[in-house]
Amino acid sequence: MSLAEQVLEGNIRAAARLMRDIDDGRPQAVDELKCLYPHTGNAYIIGITGPPGAGKSTLVDQLTASFRKQGKKVGVVAIDPTSPFTGGAILGDRIRMNRHSCDEGVFIRSLATRGALGGLSRSASDVALVMDALGMDIVIIETVGVGQDEVDIVKEAHTTCVVMVPGLGDDIQAIKAGILEIGDIFVVNKADRDGADRTARELSTMLEMRHGAAGSWNPQVMKTEAQRGAGIDELTSEILAHRDFFLSSGTIDDFLHERNQRHFISILRDTLLRKALLLLTKDGTLERVMTEMSGHHIDPYSAVEEIASKMMPDSAD
Amino acid sequence: MSLAEQVLEGNIRAAARLMRDIDDGRPQAVDELKCLYPHTGNAYIIGITGPPGAGKSTLVDQLTASFRKQGKKVGVVAIDPTSPFTGGAILGDRIRMNRHSCDEGVFIRSLATRGALGGLSRSASDVALVMDALGMDIVIIETVGVGQDEVDIVKEAHTTCVVMVPGLGDDIQAIKAGILEIGDIFVVNKADRDGADRTARELSTMLEMRHGAAGSWNPQVMKTEAQRGAGIDELTSEILAHRDFFLSSGTIDDFLHERNQRHFISILRDTLLRKALLLLTKDGTLERVMTEMSGHHIDPYSAVEEIASKMMPDSAD
Repeated sequence: MSLAEQVLEGNIRAAARLMRDIDDGRPQAVDELKCLYPHTGNAYIIGITGPPGAGKSTLVDQLTASFRKQGKKVGVVAIDPTSPFTGGAILGDRIRMNRHSCDEGVFIRSLATRGALGGLSRSASDVALVMDALGMDIVIIETVGVGQDEVDIVKEAHTTCVVMVPGLGDDIQAIKAGILEIGDIFVVNKADRDGADRTARELSTMLEMRHGAAGSWNPQVMKTEAQRGAGIDELTSEILAHRDFFLSSGTIDDFLHERNQRHFISILRDTLLRKALLLLTKDGTLERVMTEMSGHHIDPYSAVEEIASKMMPDSAD
Repeated sequence: MSLAEQVLEGNIRAAARLMRDIDDGRPQAVDELKCLYPHTGNAYIIGITGPPGAGKSTLVDQLTASFRKQGKKVGVVAIDPTSPFTGGAILGDRIRMNRHSCDEGVFIRSLATRGALGGLSRSASDVALVMDALGMDIVIIETVGVGQDEVDIVKEAHTTCVVMVPGLGDDIQAIKAGILEIGDIFVVNKADRDGADRTARELSTMLEMRHGAAGSWNPQVMKTEAQRGAGIDELTSEILAHRDFFLSSGTIDDFLHERNQRHFISILRDTLLRKALLLLTKDGTLERVMTEMSGHHIDPYSAVEEIASKMMPDSAD
């Protein structure tokens, strides 16, 4: 039985194995994903993002417990900020959410970029796909909200929660202004800290200044203390309210179209590059170009132009 | 006279104009970059990275002043964390480093990703190239040290300084462990704060545990209070010490080879994708595939496989 077939039967070990293959960029993982694809689209994906130190992991832990109480199976994809550097997740699966470790309805996976050509967002969406196929009702993707990779990851989610925390200084204020655009729900965590009310008020004011189209979703600012579980039930309800809106308002069609297009383009880009590099290595072109560039005999733009028009001569440009 | 020629004559307005064209992803910018390329490689590139709130902007401001005192021309490329979200830099050029605004030897540029296909790291390296061609002796690239984009940016630098700050919580500890690998110099900024000595000690201990090859650079931990200028001269000296090591140890050859290869591959990837999308849009393939994906009749992996083997039939895979 293929890995994909085992995953569709709910085999958690097979899912873990497939995710490892995805992480390692093994070509056969693609064949398994192809088999899984028609069986996906059932999980509801929640994105959790925000600056380092906002308490996102604890919040995700509490949300997981809350959805479990409702009988939902929960998958968690945690993107650790260390990943790009170390090729491994320091706040790894092992030390995450110990209390769910014996619960078969919870599947947790920390993600690293490692060699993956498509980068973090491709890996994250592939892993979410496997969790979907495995039968998870909810998939939570947790990431640190800075950088294009992270924005791309959050785009995979149906509902995005942006987690803020009082008193992190000026840079954070700037980030805050930026992420208004991607949040469906805003959370001020560590709400017992000084300045929590001010942070919540500032966020609300900024959200009010946003011009939402008539009939569009109106993001709320929620307060939580994830450490002791305060505000979690309210947050869960708000997430479900956004889901109901999302599924009934027609937003879902645009969302799925954009997502399909993004996946297609990202896979196309990586595949073309892989094929091209194979060709260029084989016939010695890559080595020749590198030597010419070292000697400043050619610039990379001209080199690429020449090569690309040979490779795709039918192009109209 | 072309923009490139004007830049080579030291025309700052022409440089600003070209950088805007790069940011906007205009095709003609590539032609200008081709002309500039043979005239670059003279600037020394310093990367400054670290978590939000570490005081990087202030530190960069002080370093700029310090290099100016030595008569060096300084370019600054500031990557603002807001950029991916807003398409513009909130902590923009205007409010940055006002005190250098009348100094012709300082050129500051904030960067946004906007539409740039190649992403932030390509834009940053292109802008640094323009500053190099403009005759800047030092180019400082400042970025927030989380995410693959930021790591790629830092790879452009000859010397990378990682800026930490005392007491930012657990997530930061994890980041810290990861960025050990990319730092040539470590800076504990806001060194007057509680816990500064401990943070510096922890960093030193972690660095000692790293197995550096014989004859390799030995990163130091420096303490600064950028706000009042303390420790800046020491930091500048350490950067110059690393530069001397870098230029004399043969590291520079590997560095340049890797950089050339990275630039070539990144440009190749974007060019191939652009050409392919043009073709697929023109002959209606893209629309057909999107419709088939919506109906779950095809998965993106199979769709790409079919298209790519038609486009590059000579490939060996």
